[in-house]
Amino acid sequence: MSLSPFNRVLIVGIGLIGSSLALALRKAGLARQIVALDHTPDHVAEALSLGLVDAAGDDPALADGADLVILCVPVGACGKVAAKLAPYLAPGVILTDVGSVKQAVVRDVAPVLPEGVQFIPGHPISGTEYSGPSAGFAELFEGRHCILTPTETADPAAVARLQAAWEAMGSLVTIMSAEHHDRVLAITSHLPHLIAYTIVGTATDLEEHMQQEVIKYSAGGFRDFTRIAASDPIMWRDVFLNNREAVLEMLGRLHEDLGLLARAIRIGDGATLEEKFTTTRAIRRGIIAAKQA
Amino acid sequence: MSLSPFNRVLIVGIGLIGSSLALALRKAGLARQIVALDHTPDHVAEALSLGLVDAAGDDPALADGADLVILCVPVGACGKVAAKLAPYLAPGVILTDVGSVKQAVVRDVAPVLPEGVQFIPGHPISGTEYSGPSAGFAELFEGRHCILTPTETADPAAVARLQAAWEAMGSLVTIMSAEHHDRVLAITSHLPHLIAYTIVGTATDLEEHMQQEVIKYSAGGFRDFTRIAASDPIMWRDVFLNNREAVLEMLGRLHEDLGLLARAIRIGDGATLEEKFTTTRAIRRGIIAAKQA
Repeated sequence: MSLSPFNRVLIVGIGLIGSSLALALRKAGLARQIVALDHTPDHVAEALSLGLVDAAGDDPALADGADLVILCVPVGACGKVAAKLAPYLAPGVILTDVGSVKQAVVRDVAPVLPEGVQFIPGHPISGTEYSGPSAGFAELFEGRHCILTPTETADPAAVARLQAAWEAMGSLVTIMSAEHHDRVLAITSHLPHLIAYTIVGTATDLEEHMQQEVIKYSAGGFRDFTRIAASDPIMWRDVFLNNREAVLEMLGRLHEDLGLLARAIRIGDGATLEEKFTTTRAIRRGIIAAKQA
Repeated sequence: MSLSPFNRVLIVGIGLIGSSLALALRKAGLARQIVALDHTPDHVAEALSLGLVDAAGDDPALADGADLVILCVPVGACGKVAAKLAPYLAPGVILTDVGSVKQAVVRDVAPVLPEGVQFIPGHPISGTEYSGPSAGFAELFEGRHCILTPTETADPAAVARLQAAWEAMGSLVTIMSAEHHDRVLAITSHLPHLIAYTIVGTATDLEEHMQQEVIKYSAGGFRDFTRIAASDPIMWRDVFLNNREAVLEMLGRLHEDLGLLARAIRIGDGATLEEKFTTTRAIRRGIIAAKQA
């Protein structure tokens, strides 16, 4: 569809995703004006000095006149932030977010919004292990998937407009239910992060002299986990607290599978190990074929 | 030290590491002649057609006249291979390997060697998820660590010569005991691989329609695990079977830590999660500072 730019886009939280969105929106000609709301003075100053946005500050009144509002704050903060913005949101404004959990965001945000606001939760499956306004780049969303989970009451025209905006930034958009999103992401994202945090934590607790060697010999596989385990702590705390059931279910399955492999190692059952390690190669081939490697 | 080239280097097993060694040895001028022994006819043909080696085949007599022999086969095969080579090994020849486990290799190889062979176990901490002769490249060992675990009976001159050869290929060499090696690698390499294989296996067992979505949304963290879990199945089967105690001990520690995090998620203890996720960032900074990222 042909896409007229938004008049005023408010980005709430100008970290890695927020700053990337500012750059990508600008690059795609999707916004006449971009403003940022952030309660961290350093972020505000950095966003302004980097020229990411036209205005920035910690006053919710920045939402005044916005026709697109994007919440880029930890999942646990979305409800409170939406409540502060509510008095400034005009009917017809599109309000979306980029959180890694969707049911909890719907639960917290929907009840505090004034009537007429088009609330369309979203989640771009992209990111890096870096944080802050200087970590952003316009290409972050290119070729990556973005999931939208509009409720039944959302205006289809608003959903189509938001979808077109994501597509103009290079994303592949899929629409699904918030419940389904949370289940799929529990295995593709939340569980991998939980495991990575755990294994890096286990290494952190080793005797002092071993720690230096863990760093020295990390190329053996460990370093890939440390990259994931360097992600933003507050963001991930909120993900786990807000997608508890799905994460614990997937963790339960992992537990069982780990028990089977541990037993195979203990009793010297090489056939089981070899078979298991062979089947896992297939998924890698699928990811390479899908150009998501 | 100044390094005179080896007359004839025999590489046993011309896969990723073997082919990279052939290219790196050649590039550094470390070998007058390089020959490969491999029981897979396709590997032999490929090694010859790629010009990796001067001769190749499946006849142990290729070891005749070699002054350096490098075993690049799965850990579980080292003992059998060494026994086949034994009749052709002259006193003074340096025999080393590249296996990810060291105590088991010493246990299996040392008893079958004729007197006078300088057996110096080794382990370059480098690799990719690709396999076979065409996967090799001369720069694989550059800037990476290589561990040597000579026994007390090894001739210091032979150890120094092998160390110098690795350094000429760009490696950073450390000498330690086989027992210590196996403990350090259990946490930096073996446990991460076990976990990656498990989590990818768990995803493989999901309902059919979820599997496609796991691939589609793998950028959320999962894809990093699939890369590790695409490593050679036989090699890794042998690693786990041959470093059982250390791997199961580290797995036990991981289990405890995972239990603590799962409990924090279940009871909604955000403070514990945040604290844990913050400390794990420090190790990543250490790896970046050590130029192993």
